[in-house]
Amino acid sequence: MATLCSLQSFLLQHPLHPSPKIPSLLPHKQHPRPKPSTVSCTAVRPPPVSISVANDRIFNFAAGPATLPESVILKAQAELYNYRGSGMSIMEMSHRGKEFDAVIKKAESDLRRLLAIPDDDYAVLFLQGGATTQFAAVPLNLCAPGDAVDYVVTGSWGDKAFKEAQKFCKANLIWSGKSDKYTKIPSFEGLEQNPNAKYLHICANETIHGVEFKNYPTPSNKDAVLVADMSSNFCSKPVDVSKFGVIYAGAQKNVGPSGVTIVIVRKDLIGNAQPITSVMLDYKIHADSASLYNTPPCFAIYICGLVFEDLLEQGGLAEVEKNNTKKAGILYDAIDGSNGFYVCPVEKSVRSLMNVPFTLQKSDLEKKFIKEAAKEGMIQLKGHRSVGGVRASIYNAMPLAGVEKLVAFMKDFQARHP
Amino acid sequence: MATLCSLQSFLLQHPLHPSPKIPSLLPHKQHPRPKPSTVSCTAVRPPPVSISVANDRIFNFAAGPATLPESVILKAQAELYNYRGSGMSIMEMSHRGKEFDAVIKKAESDLRRLLAIPDDDYAVLFLQGGATTQFAAVPLNLCAPGDAVDYVVTGSWGDKAFKEAQKFCKANLIWSGKSDKYTKIPSFEGLEQNPNAKYLHICANETIHGVEFKNYPTPSNKDAVLVADMSSNFCSKPVDVSKFGVIYAGAQKNVGPSGVTIVIVRKDLIGNAQPITSVMLDYKIHADSASLYNTPPCFAIYICGLVFEDLLEQGGLAEVEKNNTKKAGILYDAIDGSNGFYVCPVEKSVRSLMNVPFTLQKSDLEKKFIKEAAKEGMIQLKGHRSVGGVRASIYNAMPLAGVEKLVAFMKDFQARHP
Repeated sequence: MATLCSLQSFLLQHPLHPSPKIPSLLPHKQHPRPKPSTVSCTAVRPPPVSISVANDRIFNFAAGPATLPESVILKAQAELYNYRGSGMSIMEMSHRGKEFDAVIKKAESDLRRLLAIPDDDYAVLFLQGGATTQFAAVPLNLCAPGDAVDYVVTGSWGDKAFKEAQKFCKANLIWSGKSDKYTKIPSFEGLEQNPNAKYLHICANETIHGVEFKNYPTPSNKDAVLVADMSSNFCSKPVDVSKFGVIYAGAQKNVGPSGVTIVIVRKDLIGNAQPITSVMLDYKIHADSASLYNTPPCFAIYICGLVFEDLLEQGGLAEVEKNNTKKAGILYDAIDGSNGFYVCPVEKSVRSLMNVPFTLQKSDLEKKFIKEAAKEGMIQLKGHRSVGGVRASIYNAMPLAGVEKLVAFMKDFQARHP
Repeated sequence: MATLCSLQSFLLQHPLHPSPKIPSLLPHKQHPRPKPSTVSCTAVRPPPVSISVANDRIFNFAAGPATLPESVILKAQAELYNYRGSGMSIMEMSHRGKEFDAVIKKAESDLRRLLAIPDDDYAVLFLQGGATTQFAAVPLNLCAPGDAVDYVVTGSWGDKAFKEAQKFCKANLIWSGKSDKYTKIPSFEGLEQNPNAKYLHICANETIHGVEFKNYPTPSNKDAVLVADMSSNFCSKPVDVSKFGVIYAGAQKNVGPSGVTIVIVRKDLIGNAQPITSVMLDYKIHADSASLYNTPPCFAIYICGLVFEDLLEQGGLAEVEKNNTKKAGILYDAIDGSNGFYVCPVEKSVRSLMNVPFTLQKSDLEKKFIKEAAKEGMIQLKGHRSVGGVRASIYNAMPLAGVEKLVAFMKDFQARHP
């Protein structure tokens, strides 16, 4: 009979958390797994490997794919081989089988709870292709080629969305923050919206520039809808979904791994796609099939579901927002209190709770700053290649301890470079 | 210091392979994970859980997502929490970081080795959206709206591809197996190709109907190219890539989980997309960015990479084909040797090595057959809802033992129903 003995021997060959300090456990190839039944119990020794999680895990400030809740990763790991007694990995399951059916339904239902999405009025779709695919899908589904639509562009992602829309309708750029290097959000009163525009498009949080809408404009045309790319602040705070016609978000910031895009679309907007719309970009196809028209990205949806459970267990998005506000506050305070050693260019009232870009007054020190931080276990702090500087992405799953460690490092770095 | 003791206690809460027979270990929610440091060693008992792999694992005959190599799942599980000492999960890593860069480059390079893809002449793209997205991308990239293209339709997937292409060019149906219920492949000599067709499209293996091309037609227009949807027989046997302009395949049959689509495209065909092509459907965008234009489905690509390694370790696709031929042979022999108790409707010369559809002469027994097989650990044998009957998908990763068990069950079932 297999006992703990074989469990031990299995884990010696498949360490859950190989410590980089113990090279003998690391090179997986050098330890072909023996059949558990052939391993003698007496040969097994307690492995000298620490599974202390905090020691192994680094703080990952990447803008996306980004850090995920540790509990979600551990749960996914524990059930990756045999999903809840099914005898299969979640990766191997038919998307039309009962197990995955339960996964996707629960993910949708939990997301509806988190964001209080009205069941009757909105469809929730789990799609592929990232927000970039939605840059085309939105105009293709919401308007005819001759229709006018309005774009407020507060950063690079909004700009990409605007440019893609020009292929499919008459897209107007009604405001751009480009001349201010995307550090502002316009006042809504001053926006010159087109009276016939079918929708008004915003990017709720610009990942590269760290500019975030704190409230939302209303389309002046009463038949128009507000559309938001929420990729990088999705589920970071409560949102009144009823103000939007379409919300879309790539998962790989706050809610999952890359490979799944969530679209929340008001049902009356579905069913009018342009004739040149490929089936995969047609909201009606996916809404009618409950996101199962073709094979969905099952594993990514499963992980999103675990994250939604985790967010609900935390008390929902109001609690999540509190944590995010606290974390961002500590970091912005450190920047603003540095006597100009660190500078955040973004207007204070619209600073992102998710992506905190900053520069060093002595810009030649930035490379050193990023390198030394990495040595201390804080990685991916380099600003986007288009803007340079430093960027700390502190999504939901970044622990407070990560931000505190970064701030302590910033203070120490400043002290060492007077 | 953390020792095996905390490892044991951790695993008690996060069993790698929870046995359905031990309910106390199953309901994850009822066992909130205590911090390892708070667990007393003396409280930990060896868990009465078998990790014997073969006992827990069922045989999954699903058409896709489908069974994966067991070694790949175990490896993915072992390194899911801390990818090779990086302190992060592969799910959390920036797609522009050095770790993922190595993953995607090795995946591409291993796939090129497996299929002997000429480096200079073909691009390999890792995309999203499934083959269904390629149904649109192929015409959008390969022809103008007025161009003629030819489709040979040998099953449901080819038919979907043909219908989608009609949106974007003049798609001609030059042969259809529909009247024969998709049980045949035409003789190539008799095909009436359009002399100006830009490409000739086939579906190399029809997943639903079990019809597989054993060799390939040549476009009669010497400037035209052959395009193949190889989703369900990709990497199941060697293929002379140089015969094709485009090969595309959803990963979720032979090479990975759902969520990534591989496109192999001749480089001179890239760069002529129709103006209405969304950026995400434009091969040039992805080829110029080495599949990193936007965030790719990183985890799915990582798993494909592990599968490619596994296929190379098996000796490459010639060896893989040998195994597949053997497995399919055993199953078709059992069907053909059943004196009509089991019937495969597909013409013998074009029977798929991957998807084996069959019916029972006494069709009222099919439900019972599928149910009893499931009880014996062989699941997902139900035929596609559009055709009914039974279907055994026996992709690369289905062990010979799975086919042997199925055949033994078939014989026993027949004996019990004279």
